[in-house]
Amino acid sequence: MKRGRILFEGKTLDVTEGQGGKVQLPDGRLLAETDVQWLPPVAFGTIIALGLNYADHVKELSRELTVTSKDAPLVFLKGPNSLVGHREQTPRPVGAAFMHYECELAVVIGKTARRVSANHAMAHVAGYTVCNDYAVRDYLENFYRPNLRVKNRDACTVIGPWLVDAADVPDPHALGLRTRVNGQVTQNGNTGDMIHRVAELIEYLSGFMTLQPGDVILTGTPDGVVNVQPGDVVETEIDGIGTLVNTLAAA
Amino acid sequence: MKRGRILFEGKTLDVTEGQGGKVQLPDGRLLAETDVQWLPPVAFGTIIALGLNYADHVKELSRELTVTSKDAPLVFLKGPNSLVGHREQTPRPVGAAFMHYECELAVVIGKTARRVSANHAMAHVAGYTVCNDYAVRDYLENFYRPNLRVKNRDACTVIGPWLVDAADVPDPHALGLRTRVNGQVTQNGNTGDMIHRVAELIEYLSGFMTLQPGDVILTGTPDGVVNVQPGDVVETEIDGIGTLVNTLAAA
Repeated sequence: MKRGRILFEGKTLDVTEGQGGKVQLPDGRLLAETDVQWLPPVAFGTIIALGLNYADHVKELSRELTVTSKDAPLVFLKGPNSLVGHREQTPRPVGAAFMHYECELAVVIGKTARRVSANHAMAHVAGYTVCNDYAVRDYLENFYRPNLRVKNRDACTVIGPWLVDAADVPDPHALGLRTRVNGQVTQNGNTGDMIHRVAELIEYLSGFMTLQPGDVILTGTPDGVVNVQPGDVVETEIDGIGTLVNTLAAA
Repeated sequence: MKRGRILFEGKTLDVTEGQGGKVQLPDGRLLAETDVQWLPPVAFGTIIALGLNYADHVKELSRELTVTSKDAPLVFLKGPNSLVGHREQTPRPVGAAFMHYECELAVVIGKTARRVSANHAMAHVAGYTVCNDYAVRDYLENFYRPNLRVKNRDACTVIGPWLVDAADVPDPHALGLRTRVNGQVTQNGNTGDMIHRVAELIEYLSGFMTLQPGDVILTGTPDGVVNVQPGDVVETEIDGIGTLVNTLAAA
């Protein structure tokens, strides 16, 4: 099952994916996905993001950086101000030299997790969606924990369109993920290449903070991040999860 | 006016401060402040915290650190999992070598702020409360942006008891603040010594992220942080704002 949320005729509606990828309203009506205003698929709680969770992306950022599975996961928080849904616009700050997208598998918690071992972690996952976790690199002083001007700007966490039930994703570490900028593939990876996998991330985080239903973990991006400009259409896509469309706007 | 929130007879109640520091229920009843279960005084949205915002605290942490008002404010986010109210307990992680309190003025936003100049910033403040922003120093790799194991543990952001209306605080930068551990004063400062002041913080943050009513800015702590142990009673106090009591527990 794929679930989403839209604004339609002034109301927030919980919708599901109908035949042919259409948006099915609670009353059964089917609409084209380009004809509705998308919200993030869940009213998210805490938004946890990973830095440097794919080895090839670590390499592309800097030759000096090294991160292995023996290091603690590099996690930081994002605020709800940064969230927008599918087909929304994201402003590019005036004068920024380098702003890049990041295609990421987003893991949505479905059941409270407190001190959960990796063996039992996956039972706490409600499902998955796609995130485009933009970064404005001009402000980056620290790869390990980017500051709020890099990662917490309004509308810089694009997420959706659908939350796909965990039951429909047999292996979250066997999914191709890619980004297209204006139709051209610029990023192409596989969730099998994460340094810290989903079960391990839930064990790590729940060891010191309680994860609640609606909390979301953005699991990092592979290499292939490039600078994007106002007007660019950025599609981030994960096999079996969805294709998330965003357009860069002038600030 | 001082406003708070409590759990009483199974319900969340909005309360005010009555005569003699008592807790006044919506029906007019007065209760002793030790007889109620305190919640954070507001249902907070985004929690923004400052690192290194008092020069004397920077000095106490390290001789090599330098931070001036010309540096961008060192801001990071905290999650709602970390919040607890007045008179609650905070667990001290087993085996941690150094855990310290931090007495901080908490600034609660009352009116949406987006690209607000410092000159107009104070009109966006609803009021003030006290925060004890615990840190587990064992996990600290980076003074500028502490990681989640340092700063985002369950129950490590103690906040309250009261939200004091901004109108009742003529100058938020002329307030003594102090911490007592088991009755002994260990931290003693003044909000006049902040490196980045409240109006400037609102200008900085609202320049890239929209601040919403209920968002809170924890403005950093002066020097005098010491290691605390299970059983210690930690009182963080700000003149005219309140006295916030917390007890350390074994994890």
